[in-house]
Amino acid sequence: MRMYDLIIKTREGLELSREEIHFIIQGYTKGSIPDYQMAAWCMAVYFQGLSAKATAELTMAMVDSGETLDWPEFGAELVDKHSTGGVGDKTTLVLAPWVAAAGVKVAKMSGRGLGHTGGTLDKLSAIPGFSSELNREEFIQAVQRTGLSVVGQTGNLVPADKKLYALRDVTATVDSIPLIASSIMSKKIAAGARRIVLDVKVGDGAFMQELSAARLLAETMVDIGAQTNRHTVALVTNMDQPLGYAVGNALEVQEAIATLRGKGPADLTELSLALGAEMLVQAGKTQTPDEGRRLLQEVMLEGLPIRKLRDMIEVQGGNPDVITNPELLPVAPVSKDVKARHSGHVVAVQARKIGLIAMELGAGRQRLKDAIDLSAGLEVLVKVGDRVEQGQTIARVHGPSQAVVDSAHRKVQSSIRVDATPVEPMPLILARVSK
Amino acid sequence: MRMYDLIIKTREGLELSREEIHFIIQGYTKGSIPDYQMAAWCMAVYFQGLSAKATAELTMAMVDSGETLDWPEFGAELVDKHSTGGVGDKTTLVLAPWVAAAGVKVAKMSGRGLGHTGGTLDKLSAIPGFSSELNREEFIQAVQRTGLSVVGQTGNLVPADKKLYALRDVTATVDSIPLIASSIMSKKIAAGARRIVLDVKVGDGAFMQELSAARLLAETMVDIGAQTNRHTVALVTNMDQPLGYAVGNALEVQEAIATLRGKGPADLTELSLALGAEMLVQAGKTQTPDEGRRLLQEVMLEGLPIRKLRDMIEVQGGNPDVITNPELLPVAPVSKDVKARHSGHVVAVQARKIGLIAMELGAGRQRLKDAIDLSAGLEVLVKVGDRVEQGQTIARVHGPSQAVVDSAHRKVQSSIRVDATPVEPMPLILARVSK
Repeated sequence: MRMYDLIIKTREGLELSREEIHFIIQGYTKGSIPDYQMAAWCMAVYFQGLSAKATAELTMAMVDSGETLDWPEFGAELVDKHSTGGVGDKTTLVLAPWVAAAGVKVAKMSGRGLGHTGGTLDKLSAIPGFSSELNREEFIQAVQRTGLSVVGQTGNLVPADKKLYALRDVTATVDSIPLIASSIMSKKIAAGARRIVLDVKVGDGAFMQELSAARLLAETMVDIGAQTNRHTVALVTNMDQPLGYAVGNALEVQEAIATLRGKGPADLTELSLALGAEMLVQAGKTQTPDEGRRLLQEVMLEGLPIRKLRDMIEVQGGNPDVITNPELLPVAPVSKDVKARHSGHVVAVQARKIGLIAMELGAGRQRLKDAIDLSAGLEVLVKVGDRVEQGQTIARVHGPSQAVVDSAHRKVQSSIRVDATPVEPMPLILARVSK
Repeated sequence: MRMYDLIIKTREGLELSREEIHFIIQGYTKGSIPDYQMAAWCMAVYFQGLSAKATAELTMAMVDSGETLDWPEFGAELVDKHSTGGVGDKTTLVLAPWVAAAGVKVAKMSGRGLGHTGGTLDKLSAIPGFSSELNREEFIQAVQRTGLSVVGQTGNLVPADKKLYALRDVTATVDSIPLIASSIMSKKIAAGARRIVLDVKVGDGAFMQELSAARLLAETMVDIGAQTNRHTVALVTNMDQPLGYAVGNALEVQEAIATLRGKGPADLTELSLALGAEMLVQAGKTQTPDEGRRLLQEVMLEGLPIRKLRDMIEVQGGNPDVITNPELLPVAPVSKDVKARHSGHVVAVQARKIGLIAMELGAGRQRLKDAIDLSAGLEVLVKVGDRVEQGQTIARVHGPSQAVVDSAHRKVQSSIRVDATPVEPMPLILARVSK
C-alpha cells in the first residue's frame, strides 16, 4: 500500500477501505507518512469529503493510535456530554450536578479553554482548593460516593489527532466536516464514552458559523456513533450571543451556582434542561426527553442540584462555601459598567468578539501554556431582542487594571448593537439529530 | 503575508495577486514555506484551478526563482519548439535540420528521457562522437556557422520547478493544468525562448490521456505565452500509437535520417511538416503555415535537410558518416521479429506499453541516473488501420540478450491488437491553438 495511491483515491472521491484508512493514520502517527502527503490528503478530504463508513473507520483508526480508557466500574449507563465550544458556555458546571441529582452518574473528563472559548477545567479552578487532577482510583471513588466528578484527562489518548490537528491548523484543512467529526468522536470514544450527548454550537461565537454545516457535523457525529456502537444524540444550538450573562471563569462559576439554585439565565437553564433530558434518556433513566425534563425540574424544586455541586466541590478538595459566599471566588480589582448609548432594541451581542475581549482581559489564553486570570471577564446583561433605555447598564467589565478594563469597555460597547427596529431572537435549540 | 491565508484564498477559489504568487514561489524555493503547506496549496490548486492571469504570474514567479538565459546573438526570430513527450517522438531530430534548411536558425536546448518517453539528447548520443555539451560560446558559434545546434541545458534554471515538481510527484498533484502549464512554460521562458511552438501530445502514450484536458493544457500555455509576451502556438497531436516506426535511440536516429531524406514514415513526416511550418511562421520566414509547409517541401526536394543534419553532427564532434552508413550506429546483439498471429486489421498499438517495453529493453530509464542501452528498442512496423496477414512481420525487437528480447517479444505481441473489424485511424493533428 502506498500513500500516494490513497491520496489519488481520495482526490478522485473513491471509497477508502478500513485497511487503507488505518494505514494512513498509523503511518502518519508513526512518521512513515510525511507531513506533506498528509497535508495533500487532508486537502483532498476537504474537497471530496469521506463517506459515513470511511469517517467512522477514520475515527476508530484515530482511537487505535493511542491509549484508551474504559470504565467498567460505572456500568453501561454512563453518559458523556460534549460541547463543540462557545462563549460563556458553563453548561457542564450546571449539567453535571443537575443530572447527578436526578440519579444518573456523571463521570466527566473535561479540557482547558483556548482562544475565545473557555474550558470547564479553567472555570472549576476558580473554586479555591478545587482539584481536577484526580487519579483513576480517586475519580472512580468520587463518582461512586457522590454520583459525579469532573476531572482533567490523563493518558496519551488519540496521539494521531494531536499530530493531525496541528497539521490541519497550518494547512487550512481544519474546517472539513469528516475531519472535525472524527477528531471529536475519537477523543470521546478513546476516553471510554459509550453513550454520548453532543452540543453542536453554531453562530458567531462557535466554531461552525453556518446552520447547514453545523447540522451536517451533528449528523456526521451521530453517524459515527451509530457505526461504532456508541449511541449518540446531538443538539444543534445557537451561539450567536454568549450563553447566559457571564463570560470569565469565576463569573461563570457564580452564574452556574445561581442556575443550580433555579435562578440562572433563561437560556443557560433551558439548554441545561434540554441536554440533561437527553442524558437521562441515554442513561436509561427516563424513556423520553420530555420525561427527563420533568424529572430534572422536579429535582430542582427539591433543591438537589446545588447540593450535588457542594458534594463534588467538597470531594475534590474545594471550598464548598463558595456556594453561599460568592465573594470567596476570585474578584477582579477593577470593574466598570457599560451603559447603553441610546435607547432601542438589542439586535446583536457578538459572541466571538465578547469571547476575544474576555481573553484580552485575561480570562482566556491564546496558547495552551499561557496563564489565565480567574477573576477577569465580563457580564453581558442583555440578550438579543431585549429593549434597553439610554444609560441603562448593559454589561460589566472586570479586569486587572483600569487601562485593561477601559480598553475592553470600548470594545464591549461596540459588540452590543442597539437599533431602533427590534429583531426576533433566534431560537436556542435549532435542531435535534439522532438515529 | 501568511501562507496559511493564501491556502485559504486558493481553497475558496479567490484570485491571488502577483505579489501573493511571488510570495508563495519565493518562500517555497527559499524554504520559508514548508512542504506541507505547499502540498496543501497544490491540492487546493488541483481542485480550484488558477485564473489565466494567476497562471501567468505563477510561471513568471517560477522563472524568477533562478538563472535565466538570453540569446541576443540570435535575434528576435529565434523559435523554440517543445513536445510534452511521447513514444517514438524523434521530431526534434527531424525538425531542427529541416527548419534550418529553410533558413531559420535553430538553437535548441533539449533534455534526457524518463519513464516510457525518450529524450532528444539520449537519441543524439547514439551518434558516435556527438557531443551535446557545448558551452555558450560553442553553442552560439555552432548556430551561427551552420544554422542549427541541439545541446543540453546548463545553468540553474527554474529551481522552483524542480522543488515543486518533486513535491507534486509524491502528493498526487501532478495532473493540474495550471501547474503543468506553468512548469513547462517557465522552463521555456527561463531558457530564453521568445517564440514557442508546442506539441501537446494526447493519448495512451502521452502524459495527457484526454483530448479535452490536452486542449485545455494547450490553451493555458498559449495564454501564458500571450500574457508574458512570448508568442506561442500549440498543436494538439495524437499519441495513441508510437510516432513513426522506431522506438529506441539508435533506431530513432536512423529513422530521422530516413525522414530527412524524404523517406520517413508518413506520420513523422507530416508532424514535422506541421510543426516546422508553425516555426517558420513564428520566425517570420513565411506568412502562413501553408506557405511554411510549401517551403519545407521545396527544401526537401533540394536535399537540404539531410545536409543540415550532417553539418550539425560534424560541428558537434559526431561522425557524419552515420548518415550514409547506419551500421555505424550502435546495433543490438539480438533481434527478433514479431509476426501477426492472425490476419485482420490493426486496431491498436498501445503506445504506453511499447514505451515501457523499450525501457525494459534498456532504451529508457526509470531514474535520471540510470544508464541506457543506445542500441536497444523496437520497430513497430504497422499503424492503426493497416491490414495485416497472418505471419506478417509486424514488429522487430532489439535487445542485449535472448532472454530480454524474448520477454519483450511477448509483450509487444499483446500491445499490437489485430481484429477482424477495421477501425478508422485517428487523425494525427487534433487541434491547433493560438491567440
